[in-house]
Amino acid sequence: MPHFTPPQFLGLLAVILAVAKLCGAAAQWIGQPAVLGELLAGVLLGMSVVGLVNPDNEVLHLLAELGVVILLFEIGLETDLQKLLKVGGASAAVAVVGVLLPFALGYGVCRMLGLDNLVAVVAGASLTATSVGITARVLSDLNRLQEPESQIILGAAVIDDVIGLVILAVVTGLTHGEAVTVLGVLKTTGIAFGFLAGTLLVGRLIVPPLVRMVSRVELPGTATMLAVILAFGLAWLASVAGSAMIIGAFAAGLLIRDTPKAHEIERGVAQLGHFFVPLFFVSVGAAVDVRVLNPIDPANRATLEIGGLLIVAAVFSKFVAGYAPFWFRGNKKVIGVGMIPRGEVGLIFAQTGLTAGVFDAGLFSAITLMVMVTTFIAPPLLKLLFPPIHAEKSPPQPEGIEDLATEA
Amino acid sequence: MPHFTPPQFLGLLAVILAVAKLCGAAAQWIGQPAVLGELLAGVLLGMSVVGLVNPDNEVLHLLAELGVVILLFEIGLETDLQKLLKVGGASAAVAVVGVLLPFALGYGVCRMLGLDNLVAVVAGASLTATSVGITARVLSDLNRLQEPESQIILGAAVIDDVIGLVILAVVTGLTHGEAVTVLGVLKTTGIAFGFLAGTLLVGRLIVPPLVRMVSRVELPGTATMLAVILAFGLAWLASVAGSAMIIGAFAAGLLIRDTPKAHEIERGVAQLGHFFVPLFFVSVGAAVDVRVLNPIDPANRATLEIGGLLIVAAVFSKFVAGYAPFWFRGNKKVIGVGMIPRGEVGLIFAQTGLTAGVFDAGLFSAITLMVMVTTFIAPPLLKLLFPPIHAEKSPPQPEGIEDLATEA
Repeated sequence: MPHFTPPQFLGLLAVILAVAKLCGAAAQWIGQPAVLGELLAGVLLGMSVVGLVNPDNEVLHLLAELGVVILLFEIGLETDLQKLLKVGGASAAVAVVGVLLPFALGYGVCRMLGLDNLVAVVAGASLTATSVGITARVLSDLNRLQEPESQIILGAAVIDDVIGLVILAVVTGLTHGEAVTVLGVLKTTGIAFGFLAGTLLVGRLIVPPLVRMVSRVELPGTATMLAVILAFGLAWLASVAGSAMIIGAFAAGLLIRDTPKAHEIERGVAQLGHFFVPLFFVSVGAAVDVRVLNPIDPANRATLEIGGLLIVAAVFSKFVAGYAPFWFRGNKKVIGVGMIPRGEVGLIFAQTGLTAGVFDAGLFSAITLMVMVTTFIAPPLLKLLFPPIHAEKSPPQPEGIEDLATEA
Repeated sequence: MPHFTPPQFLGLLAVILAVAKLCGAAAQWIGQPAVLGELLAGVLLGMSVVGLVNPDNEVLHLLAELGVVILLFEIGLETDLQKLLKVGGASAAVAVVGVLLPFALGYGVCRMLGLDNLVAVVAGASLTATSVGITARVLSDLNRLQEPESQIILGAAVIDDVIGLVILAVVTGLTHGEAVTVLGVLKTTGIAFGFLAGTLLVGRLIVPPLVRMVSRVELPGTATMLAVILAFGLAWLASVAGSAMIIGAFAAGLLIRDTPKAHEIERGVAQLGHFFVPLFFVSVGAAVDVRVLNPIDPANRATLEIGGLLIVAAVFSKFVAGYAPFWFRGNKKVIGVGMIPRGEVGLIFAQTGLTAGVFDAGLFSAITLMVMVTTFIAPPLLKLLFPPIHAEKSPPQPEGIEDLATEA
């Protein structure tokens, strides 16, 4: 693991941010969500092309994690819990079908190709998770976060993340040859949902007085920093409690949303987001190895074949999951497409399979390919099905005050 | 070097920021600059008390460096180059006397105590540098950055940093037993000043069109990120050119100041500053080992004795340097006091002496003690001599728009 001197680190950050912003602006210029450009910037800078960004480097990895935590906090800030609960049934249906169907199809594809049972289970599992970060960012780029479809996607993606944790725990147990007990699965599930519920209940009592107290401090930026401290603290706590960091950050956003300082905090955290969030997407992009796409190398043919089948399974199954809440009268296509991107979560499954020795390099690459394609097709498809809303002409705002809704 | 998992890292950042903000607010509450509280937070969290913050940890060290680079960029943004050049003669006088006198006194004290010539040279050198970060932050906290005294201090501190680089190069050469040539010293000096002049000349041509171009991009936060990229890029370039990172960041601030987006950028970068700058001061504080202050341990007596003499030499010599521009009709006491804090720069010298084997642990601790005392006495003394100006009652601003002048 190479270490950076401070000047090297600053230089690297300058390059990453410059390329990410350039590609983001270019994506927007051709009518695509900016996040697509940031992901491509990551592929460009990653190990398989320019070789400048190694997503496994400790410092970059930690900053990228800060980015996704800040992003989910921002999404929480924009999420109305009442609205989210109102579509809770639909979200749960999308999430459950969107886990079972991809798993079944992925498992089926692998067995059909003659792979072992354990291998097929882990591969199927890697098709289940949705990258809430990518979808949320796209919906935010499209200024569509407040639509019922978006609320269902968001709720489903959060539930999906919780189920994903349970599956990851099961898969990790399986790959280490451990027996998986019903009790263990129930415990992991209970902790994950319990953390979210408990945090929201306790936080509702603690956060408003904290914000009031801080409002009396004259140091500028104190409210924003309190929010950041809360987001980081809950992310840590979520992880300690056996849940996912982004669940904690999302909960922090929900809690801050109901305080009188929410707008000031939204603007302050947006500035941190402009810095940290692209580091996350660049990092996701940099984990992609484009060399597996080269069909001239015969070693890649099997990978491309399995990968192709997995892509079909992954896209089709999540798309169908969008129709699970049959009673919902909105645009069900949008919901399905919103659930397609696997992003970093899919890569974590692939990594677990590889390091445990369950996957060979070929299957690992095939899953990487599936992650890459699902991640990259979702933003343009979403934009096609769910054209951006342009904010109503609001009264002119002082220069520099930006509406978070146009970019998380 | 311990590695962090992402949740540990988030938890640690939450604790550091919370303690820094609490101590900063407490310092302000008892009428002291907030930076004093942040330094104390660092001492508290550092290895000699709680043991939570290890300033040598790579990730924390890199984030702290980001902090000081962002701080100097902010100071550059608030600095009028014309005003700075107008007091250039006074600044140069303060800087030169403020290097020669501390060196002579420090060298003299060490020789008097019977130390070797080389040891006395390195110890004397560690008395020469001023921590521009600490003084600039205090002046900014006091809302006094625009006063002529502050401009002289700022100019002198920047020149001091350049001279400090030259001295560090000479000292590093000496401690490695190399011969120091006049040509080498001139070259280092030329590069350092040349970089600043060259950057400002070339930047004046490139930066304004860049800002205009970026103004046309619709992605929120683009102007702020351009400024950050410029600051980091110039910091890297400065280092590659053999100058100091903070000189590059300061130059970036001066260049952005003259563009129409300066205000928007100032507000955006301030939010990043609220996050990163305390990490720098906590890191400086955490490098302080308070155990050398324990007079019961007989091993500390010699350290306290040398340290005490060095403190007198360090404070007296910089204070006198404030009177060097005899033609200046303002408050010369303020200038001298503003030059007193040695901060992280003094620690770098001490570290160089220690790792080269020139200093023993006792002398290293004595210099650490000198750094600690000069760093901690300057903020309250400055505040005493240079009471804060309260911003004139300006028209009410929308909530969340903060004036950078009250805290960098």
